[in-house]
Amino acid sequence: MKQSQMFIPTMKEKPADAESASHRLLLRGGFIRQNAAGIYSYLPLGYKIIKKIETIIREEMDGTGSQELLMPAMQPAELWHETGRWDVYGPELMRLKDRHGRYFALGATGEELITSLVRDFLNSYKKLPMSVYQIQTKFRDEKRPRFGLLRGREFIMKDAYTFHDSAESLDKAYWDMYHAYCRIFERCGLKYRAVLADSGAIGGKDTHEFQALADIGEDTIAYSDSSDYAANLEMAAVLETDGSEKGDSLPLEKVSGNQEISGDIKIAAHWFKTRTDTVVVFIKAEDEINDVKVKNVLNTDLIEPLEDVNPDPINPEKDVLIFADNALKHLSRTAFYNKTEDATYFHLDPDRDLSIQQYDDLRFIKEGDLSPDGQGIIKFARGIEIGQVFKLGTKYSEAMNATYLDADGKAKPLIMGCYGIGVSRTLSAVCEQYHDDNGMIWPKSLAPFTIHLITVNPKNEEQFKLSDQLYQQLLNQGYDVLWDDRRERPGVKFADSELIGCPVQVIVGKKAAENIIELAARREKERVETSISEMASAISDLLETLD
Amino acid sequence: MKQSQMFIPTMKEKPADAESASHRLLLRGGFIRQNAAGIYSYLPLGYKIIKKIETIIREEMDGTGSQELLMPAMQPAELWHETGRWDVYGPELMRLKDRHGRYFALGATGEELITSLVRDFLNSYKKLPMSVYQIQTKFRDEKRPRFGLLRGREFIMKDAYTFHDSAESLDKAYWDMYHAYCRIFERCGLKYRAVLADSGAIGGKDTHEFQALADIGEDTIAYSDSSDYAANLEMAAVLETDGSEKGDSLPLEKVSGNQEISGDIKIAAHWFKTRTDTVVVFIKAEDEINDVKVKNVLNTDLIEPLEDVNPDPINPEKDVLIFADNALKHLSRTAFYNKTEDATYFHLDPDRDLSIQQYDDLRFIKEGDLSPDGQGIIKFARGIEIGQVFKLGTKYSEAMNATYLDADGKAKPLIMGCYGIGVSRTLSAVCEQYHDDNGMIWPKSLAPFTIHLITVNPKNEEQFKLSDQLYQQLLNQGYDVLWDDRRERPGVKFADSELIGCPVQVIVGKKAAENIIELAARREKERVETSISEMASAISDLLETLD
Repeated sequence: MKQSQMFIPTMKEKPADAESASHRLLLRGGFIRQNAAGIYSYLPLGYKIIKKIETIIREEMDGTGSQELLMPAMQPAELWHETGRWDVYGPELMRLKDRHGRYFALGATGEELITSLVRDFLNSYKKLPMSVYQIQTKFRDEKRPRFGLLRGREFIMKDAYTFHDSAESLDKAYWDMYHAYCRIFERCGLKYRAVLADSGAIGGKDTHEFQALADIGEDTIAYSDSSDYAANLEMAAVLETDGSEKGDSLPLEKVSGNQEISGDIKIAAHWFKTRTDTVVVFIKAEDEINDVKVKNVLNTDLIEPLEDVNPDPINPEKDVLIFADNALKHLSRTAFYNKTEDATYFHLDPDRDLSIQQYDDLRFIKEGDLSPDGQGIIKFARGIEIGQVFKLGTKYSEAMNATYLDADGKAKPLIMGCYGIGVSRTLSAVCEQYHDDNGMIWPKSLAPFTIHLITVNPKNEEQFKLSDQLYQQLLNQGYDVLWDDRRERPGVKFADSELIGCPVQVIVGKKAAENIIELAARREKERVETSISEMASAISDLLETLD
Repeated sequence: MKQSQMFIPTMKEKPADAESASHRLLLRGGFIRQNAAGIYSYLPLGYKIIKKIETIIREEMDGTGSQELLMPAMQPAELWHETGRWDVYGPELMRLKDRHGRYFALGATGEELITSLVRDFLNSYKKLPMSVYQIQTKFRDEKRPRFGLLRGREFIMKDAYTFHDSAESLDKAYWDMYHAYCRIFERCGLKYRAVLADSGAIGGKDTHEFQALADIGEDTIAYSDSSDYAANLEMAAVLETDGSEKGDSLPLEKVSGNQEISGDIKIAAHWFKTRTDTVVVFIKAEDEINDVKVKNVLNTDLIEPLEDVNPDPINPEKDVLIFADNALKHLSRTAFYNKTEDATYFHLDPDRDLSIQQYDDLRFIKEGDLSPDGQGIIKFARGIEIGQVFKLGTKYSEAMNATYLDADGKAKPLIMGCYGIGVSRTLSAVCEQYHDDNGMIWPKSLAPFTIHLITVNPKNEEQFKLSDQLYQQLLNQGYDVLWDDRRERPGVKFADSELIGCPVQVIVGKKAAENIIELAARREKERVETSISEMASAISDLLETLD
């Protein structure tokens, strides 16, 4: 395509409010434009990349036997009432009323809609398993949209749903999807980790998140430095490492006031409320309490910290649940400041002095801890969540009465899995991994154009003629070529070319009359003079060396 | 694809509320499902067809040099305020408020958004012309959604926009689009007419609608029986046919009451209000007044009929505008009942007795009238509007201050064109033209699968083995094949096959052991026995004969 005819509004200046490299460079390269907070247009260059990502996704999803369909963005509120999510989802769910006063959600996710679509059809075990997917615009009214496409309010998502009559069938689909996701992200050129993630206490069982590694990532991944182990920070199990005998206890001492502590190990108490219970959890003061682990141990979907209230954990009310982190099992001399009494306890032996009902793994893992699989040491990395596979189980089918008849003619709820990929997020993640200060350096599989043909001075007849000839030649060879035929200063052209980031640059300049051009990879600074007779093989050799 | 694994919820019964063939058959064939009034899901079969239509559109749009982009569905209200359309558009515009209380429109059309996107970039005549398009879900809160996808509230549309610095440049783009549209609809197999349409008095100039011929169509097309002439009913000009001398007048007579009329030609008066004027239009009582023509003659964007008021047209107030249809120019003896006076006028000579300020073409054309191009006689047909090309001019660029600098450095508003295709409507229109009572008969270019391979009894080992072998063979030959491998009764299978409507059926039945299959075109009743050695050539011969 001729650049003079294209809509590529590059920006010289760094946009002030763009906090991440992907946000900044997608704007500067003319790939996207913001229309409102968290709402973007994909301009021709950006949309070319989106379509390439979508093609990769389609090929791999079709390969699993999944069928593409397209559900509407407007979802009747009645469906969300069936599962109770109309009330639970909160302000992130965009809602609107039609001219007749009927309420709709703008699809943030599609479980209700797909379950309503299949529940009449999937009435027999003979029709199972079944797998469907869609690539669709989704809506979530994020409180603080940021990082451009990374946390937007309108975004493109691939969501897939599978339906089964057994846990084994779901398991097979789950791992088929898992491996398809690996292929998708590999084909996009991404460095990523598939990490264990939290499925919540109610609903699913297994779930993995696919995290693209990037400093800007909002999630922390705990991974082993010497094995494949990776988990979301909140999911990483802490090994009980201290197998040594507990030391001797000393008599409990109580001193009024908040005393300085030395010798004893300081512990802290964290209070929570669930729908039914009040809970206190003791952990070492240097450790960080992990709400997700507390929630999972309590087998509840909701816990709220009680921050401003400070009941007495030493002499608790009768019905308070008292938990402690595993670490306390091995401690005989701890210290604790009890705010209620304004007193500090010394030589507190948790087992002896606290009415602990259960020890469990309730803290966040730390860098330097042993890896939970026993191999290596835990390190942290930041990740951008680009996909998730999830065993839903029967949460939605039960709520929405989506049943099939099994071989014995008995009605059972469909067993479901759901699987998401953030398409626009994937674009951002690729940006975070493939750029330098001057702009994008696209991997071959996603580059909007493979070759950027740059005519240094198009007013020069020889340069223009040679460029025109090479443009046709490269197109005939099957390359996707962007020809900068614009009458702009060379400085502008080269700056734009770096922003746009095509993998290979073919530069037609002063030596056009001698049939010599310059060839460069976008990621290198070096340009190599090449005669046009050797250009074809030089380009294919160069492409071989690139991601 | 194996039918046993596909989501094709066919329906035996005719859905009660489906008024049109396309609506009924898209539901019955398992192509779509309704989620709410005017809101549908495209199931795997239906979405395969949608994607084929989109591919044709993309190829032809790219061929015009237009660039694909994707704008968001959520459009900030501020943009619609700039053009005043937030207030003018009415209840068809879906609106919502985000969590911060900011208003958005769900895109019904994209003029505001695209103008806001390009206005900073297209700052020089050097960057013009430019052409962009998108294929996107659109929203319109139709009061009475009907006919399935034909008048839905959420639908897929291709909208394109071009930007120019001269009327000639716009004209070229307009006709390029016009011809691209012709190719698109031809490739979809549609019988259609490109018809002159109303552009409204303000805004654009030229506009054509593309109407697919179908009895269910909501628009009436007036076309010549012996030329290419075609126009929307309201746009078809009426020729002044009566060139004969006016007959002699007789003295005006006034008789009280509403008298029977014979001899004289009865005329009627129609009253309208514009933003500034009151207007009365006289036409022959047997003719139908054409509001659009009245509006265009008055060069206004709004007229309202005054139905309940009956001012005196014979003795009108001083500032009333008095118009008459061309037909009255040639009449000397007409009769008129004046309600205000409750009196009938006889021998009324319009020229002599009415203070007519202007004669013009103000009535609807009728079947049997001469064609406006002078060739042939006008006939009527019903059409489904599937596309429109429109010269917008500077309506949006002026309102939104989208200007470019011309060669003299003078700021001028961008000249715009816009061009739409209803993608889901096109699917419906194809259905209306390609079906019989039993289901769809898809044209080859859009068929979800070219070949339906039907195993009559998959429990029979010979039938199943041969089917499996033929399935692989046909796939290897590059055909898109749906294999009905389901353990269903033959009657169910053949009924489903007719509903699904693949162009070619390959039936593996009792003669499987003899390596004989049956071949049929979906549109014929006849099945032909073919040996499997001759199958390949028989299929390609058969396909040659089909649309």
